[in-house]
Amino acid sequence: MALTETSLIERLRGAGAARSDVALGIGDDAAVLTVPPDQQLVVSTDTLVSGVHFPEGCPAASIGHRALAVNLSDLAAMGACPAWALLALTLPEADEDWLNQFAAGFGSLAREHRVALVGGDTTRGPLCVTVEVLGFVPPGRALRRAGAAAGDLVFVSGTPGDAGAGLLIEQGRLSAPMPAASHLRARFLEPSPRVALGERLRRFASACIDVSDGLMGDAGKLALASGLALELDYEALPLSPALREAVDAEAAARLALTGGDDYELCFAVAPQRVAQLTAELPPERWGYTRIGTLTAGSGVRLMRGGTVMDFSHSGYQHFA
Amino acid sequence: MALTETSLIERLRGAGAARSDVALGIGDDAAVLTVPPDQQLVVSTDTLVSGVHFPEGCPAASIGHRALAVNLSDLAAMGACPAWALLALTLPEADEDWLNQFAAGFGSLAREHRVALVGGDTTRGPLCVTVEVLGFVPPGRALRRAGAAAGDLVFVSGTPGDAGAGLLIEQGRLSAPMPAASHLRARFLEPSPRVALGERLRRFASACIDVSDGLMGDAGKLALASGLALELDYEALPLSPALREAVDAEAAARLALTGGDDYELCFAVAPQRVAQLTAELPPERWGYTRIGTLTAGSGVRLMRGGTVMDFSHSGYQHFA
Repeated sequence: MALTETSLIERLRGAGAARSDVALGIGDDAAVLTVPPDQQLVVSTDTLVSGVHFPEGCPAASIGHRALAVNLSDLAAMGACPAWALLALTLPEADEDWLNQFAAGFGSLAREHRVALVGGDTTRGPLCVTVEVLGFVPPGRALRRAGAAAGDLVFVSGTPGDAGAGLLIEQGRLSAPMPAASHLRARFLEPSPRVALGERLRRFASACIDVSDGLMGDAGKLALASGLALELDYEALPLSPALREAVDAEAAARLALTGGDDYELCFAVAPQRVAQLTAELPPERWGYTRIGTLTAGSGVRLMRGGTVMDFSHSGYQHFA
Repeated sequence: MALTETSLIERLRGAGAARSDVALGIGDDAAVLTVPPDQQLVVSTDTLVSGVHFPEGCPAASIGHRALAVNLSDLAAMGACPAWALLALTLPEADEDWLNQFAAGFGSLAREHRVALVGGDTTRGPLCVTVEVLGFVPPGRALRRAGAAAGDLVFVSGTPGDAGAGLLIEQGRLSAPMPAASHLRARFLEPSPRVALGERLRRFASACIDVSDGLMGDAGKLALASGLALELDYEALPLSPALREAVDAEAAARLALTGGDDYELCFAVAPQRVAQLTAELPPERWGYTRIGTLTAGSGVRLMRGGTVMDFSHSGYQHFA
């Protein structure tokens, strides 16, 4: 069934949370919002393109979920509390079932994080979703990629590589036994942005970045922005049991380092702050692992048993 | 020459204005912004898709200009003062010349309105540009589509229809003598969002909408949102000399009523406020024209010499 633009927007209006700080929401030329006077505004935008950021034929609920999740992950990396989102949705056709599923995926994650959908635009064209998220942070307290010091320890949340394996399974380029396969697919299709962890890390982290393009590259960006070198401990990489069931140890580590689509947080903590970090945010409950150390210099070195590994970024040809 | 995503973002970083309220701009996971404590935030997003919102092969400078202009026009319709923009750019290939021209078109309009580019995402895919703009309005003072009263007079800025004719010329579906043709093309390729007028209208207008999808339809949305009927005066439509040179009187009026892409403001003013409006914002300087009246009831009636015209929305087949 075809839907007009007006009804597309109306359909999405109720997808997010209701918030009293939305003075005027969807339906006029722009939204009017009340920012708390004691907070800075944090804003980010990310686009998902069909065939690039998700396989063609990807479930609509996953596209809706991921379009918001990748943006919430950016706010999480800043230590910000999300509040509002805008959605620009380009669709080849207005298919009601597809749209209902998209709205369900977007909406359940939005409500989980109390995010109101305050504006949007629906256009006709090749499938493409751009979301902008807006949130708050106390003045001067946003986490940045820069700010870490030599000697700071580096951590990552979750188990990177799962989503990369999940995408390969989704693409039919990797097969794995159940239930590992369905766990890995879910990590790609419905990533969990680490918003609660990011907000708490404002008290501990000296720098933070979201892991979206592969842990090794993104951790390297944190080191670069902080003007430091990074030593990553190959043996410390947190590999999930599902990932280890799906691929051998070397492939699992490669996916963890370069797989992408993780939407985890990589962060640095000064050594003298680590005891308090682990006391207040127990790693076994908050799910993070120490994976390396920042040092003077530049570049990323992957260490195994005290020696530098020769690790090439050559990708996944062996899965093809 | 191919450009990586990092250098694409770097290239665009300097395109906009520099502002002291940008605590952290492009280059981290999100931007951090300082909203004045005595202002509400106004946000809008609009997407331009190649082949839908502009012809394929449209100059890159025009795409950059229009992607920002259509969003600034939304803020203008709210009476808001723009401050920041985010840009999500999906490109089939990273062509340096194209990108330089896009940045020039986007940047010159951004600097004209003191808008800082604070974030963005560049992705590979079919050409598609989404911009989000953020601005300020004093609390409770945003203009809305709703709020007009029966008896309020309706005005439009500029000369609607020019951009519609310009698009037809750009598409090779209409020819016109020079310099009319180049004037009309420019009205499509580089519309001027009425930001300064919108801000001033906060003191006068009871309702306001931006004219992007055709004057008759958009004025009708203002009437609908205000719970009123609209009488439009066919003889009062402000037709530009260039438009009248390009097409006959009937086609000119049709383009003015339904052409789209105008990015003008349509606004309502209570009769007792009109003398002050025209004294403080002289129409000959600010470029607006009375085109109708709001009355009790619903729907849009087009009046000509005291009688209701039979006006069908049948489009431009005669140009094809």
